[in-house]
Amino acid sequence: MIYVTKKVSFSASHRLFNPTWDNEKNEEIFDKCNNQNGHGHNYVLEVTVKGFPDPDTGYVFDLKKMKRIIEDHLLKFVDHKHLNHDVDFLSGIIPTAENMAVKFWEVLQEKFEPASLHKLKIWETENSMVEYFGDKVHIQLYDEQ
Amino acid sequence: MIYVTKKVSFSASHRLFNPTWDNEKNEEIFDKCNNQNGHGHNYVLEVTVKGFPDPDTGYVFDLKKMKRIIEDHLLKFVDHKHLNHDVDFLSGIIPTAENMAVKFWEVLQEKFEPASLHKLKIWETENSMVEYFGDKVHIQLYDEQ
Amino acid sequence: MIYVTKKVSFSASHRLFNPTWDNEKNEEIFDKCNNQNGHGHNYVLEVTVKGFPDPDTGYVFDLKKMKRIIEDHLLKFVDHKHLNHDVDFLSGIIPTAENMAVKFWEVLQEKFEPASLHKLKIWETENSMVEYFGDKVHIQLYDEQ
Amino acid sequence: MIYVTKKVSFSASHRLFNPTWDNEKNEEIFDKCNNQNGHGHNYVLEVTVKGFPDPDTGYVFDLKKMKRIIEDHLLKFVDHKHLNHDVDFLSGIIPTAENMAVKFWEVLQEKFEPASLHKLKIWETENSMVEYFGDKVHIQLYDEQ
Amino acid sequence: MIYVTKKVSFSASHRLFNPTWDNEKNEEIFDKCNNQNGHGHNYVLEVTVKGFPDPDTGYVFDLKKMKRIIEDHLLKFVDHKHLNHDVDFLSGIIPTAENMAVKFWEVLQEKFEPASLHKLKIWETENSMVEYFGDKVHIQLYDEQ
Amino acid sequence: MIYVTKKVSFSASHRLFNPTWDNEKNEEIFDKCNNQNGHGHNYVLEVTVKGFPDPDTGYVFDLKKMKRIIEDHLLKFVDHKHLNHDVDFLSGIIPTAENMAVKFWEVLQEKFEPASLHKLKIWETENSMVEYFGDKVHIQLYDEQ
Repeated sequence: MIYVTKKVSFSASHRLFNPTWDNEKNEEIFDKCNNQNGHGHNYVLEVTVKGFPDPDTGYVFDLKKMKRIIEDHLLKFVDHKHLNHDVDFLSGIIPTAENMAVKFWEVLQEKFEPASLHKLKIWETENSMVEYFGDKVHIQLYDEQ
Repeated sequence: MIYVTKKVSFSASHRLFNPTWDNEKNEEIFDKCNNQNGHGHNYVLEVTVKGFPDPDTGYVFDLKKMKRIIEDHLLKFVDHKHLNHDVDFLSGIIPTAENMAVKFWEVLQEKFEPASLHKLKIWETENSMVEYFGDKVHIQLYDEQ
Repeated sequence: MIYVTKKVSFSASHRLFNPTWDNEKNEEIFDKCNNQNGHGHNYVLEVTVKGFPDPDTGYVFDLKKMKRIIEDHLLKFVDHKHLNHDVDFLSGIIPTAENMAVKFWEVLQEKFEPASLHKLKIWETENSMVEYFGDKVHIQLYDEQ
Repeated sequence: MIYVTKKVSFSASHRLFNPTWDNEKNEEIFDKCNNQNGHGHNYVLEVTVKGFPDPDTGYVFDLKKMKRIIEDHLLKFVDHKHLNHDVDFLSGIIPTAENMAVKFWEVLQEKFEPASLHKLKIWETENSMVEYFGDKVHIQLYDEQ
Repeated sequence: MIYVTKKVSFSASHRLFNPTWDNEKNEEIFDKCNNQNGHGHNYVLEVTVKGFPDPDTGYVFDLKKMKRIIEDHLLKFVDHKHLNHDVDFLSGIIPTAENMAVKFWEVLQEKFEPASLHKLKIWETENSMVEYFGDKVHIQLYDEQ
Repeated sequence: MIYVTKKVSFSASHRLFNPTWDNEKNEEIFDKCNNQNGHGHNYVLEVTVKGFPDPDTGYVFDLKKMKRIIEDHLLKFVDHKHLNHDVDFLSGIIPTAENMAVKFWEVLQEKFEPASLHKLKIWETENSMVEYFGDKVHIQLYDEQ
């Protein structure tokens, strides 16, 4: 196996809050991330696929093609958007980086054959990062506010 | 003269639009930056002051103190905020990095004596940056929407 | 499982030498790292925990809380310190990044429940790094000099 | 086990093409990477070894020695070279980062005893990266053109 | 005045040699940069323009437009190319970063009105950089080899 | 004029204190930087020279030569050293980045002819930086402790 990674970035805003909690509780738990008008980040996303190099090309997966797939299926829906309001496939979730990783996986999972998706890494800031390998994870859905 | 720089960062959301224009014109000019629900960035701010080193300390300006001043007078008002709605000293301007630099200068200008503020550098993304040295610049004010 | 990482940094000095060896042997083995008055680094530490996102928050572990724990239990003891002389939990070890990782693990191991500590990554310079996953490793203790 | 990584870089040029294909097909598949006169990159290579810290030194493997080994056995052959023409151990392969990783592994594999080579990571640009752990992979050889 | 900078990158190969010198002299002066088959870099280019913010937009110059101009007039001619052979406006010069900066200036100079081009910064590697402000500089032309 | 910059780094320890002050005053002013056993940094130094490109080479100053000069005259004296005790040309000064820049300037000033030294930039951490252009600055000397 060889692992191939493409790094991309997008700029988006979000607000963290649990709609079943009152303001006080949201404030206590999410603190500054709960600002009512939201805040934003330059997210950095690293998509890793695994496979064997094609003898004809020496590529596990053509990185130019990989970038286009990530742009067409993911980035155009989240870049310069508000993650709580503008993105169908994030609808109803609390848009933490953890939950975003799980939802991004669903979007990208089948897109890199014959290679297979191995890992998603999301940097929310240059000091905060999550990694997800596609394990079964339960994501709570809430009615949108 | 010696120049001393402190680099800090903050996460905020904004929306670029001119309230005297209709949607179509705003869309044409500001494109994806005009998304109605806004978007966001991890802004990086470099504050540079100039002066002579104090013979007693070897400091032009103590960088630990400089960081606290930037946090107390600037960052606590913009970090994890929506720049169009939540920040008094940005009220009524179009929050481009250019306009933000001019307004940040007004906030920080007198705060580093006996050193003097020399430059503000704002990275909106890792590829887009503005620099401002305190020149007289006219900033248009609009009624807030 | 989802993996969540917080990156922090600290500035410290150290000296590498084995007190059971003479100067010549220390010089030969540790070379410039054996400078008698020590030298220093801006260490970068990445702490990774793993777990499942809490349905109420979407967090595996709140990264703001994680930063405070790392600061309170680790950084305040090593930041702006001499690692050979000033840090109780490093006492008697040769402060290589490898040995530091093992000792840092002991300090942080139980602090992130219900998540569990998964990995420590220490960059000594931007080109030299160690990773530790909590395996049983023997660390030699020496009488302090 | 503890994992120790040294990061180095080298500047080289290459051209991607399959000599059994005509120009049109090469153009279609490799696109701009197929430019006849080649193009180039500042490659970043991270070499990771694993092992247990030596009780006498606290080192899994001395990183100063590790750097010299990488320079003597690998970098001096690829730095400031054309990877299609100037490097014996890359002769006949399509010099994608995937294939380079497999060939670099053969060169470095036995060089870090008593530690063992664990991973090679090659960044071709700051957004494109491959990782290889030494798995058996078939690399197609072509007659050099 | 406010200064606005767009950072872009491109991957190219080049060879440094003076065609009026023999091999020995070229080897002595240009050393590894004189490798006959060339070598390459991921160049990073920062383009800085200066001007006053337009009251209608808050922009000195729209950075999205700036990126397109740099791509259309410069990057498409140098990205994934051999700088000695493939680029008309570099024909006959020794492609050092200094000379490239002067030639890039000629290409971009008039393209950002009403803002004006202020500085070009070229990083050849992450440790080697040149800056040019449009001063009159003589560039020697050689017959191409 | 064209400006050429070489970036290098070194790892050193230091302690900030004024020997004419008592512990309490040093503690108050220098805070954690006054730790008795010192602390350390990976300093990053950018050396910028200016001049015109030599028509024979296209170089303002050969960056390979520039690196060797910086290593031979500066880095070998400060890398892996204690700046308060081990460096002759820093003897008696408080080793702030400001004072270091002035002293480094004296060391490097005449070394790059026919180019001339233009700027020294020192990053003490990735968020704290000083720049010096060779202006006349008074540095207080103290008896060494």
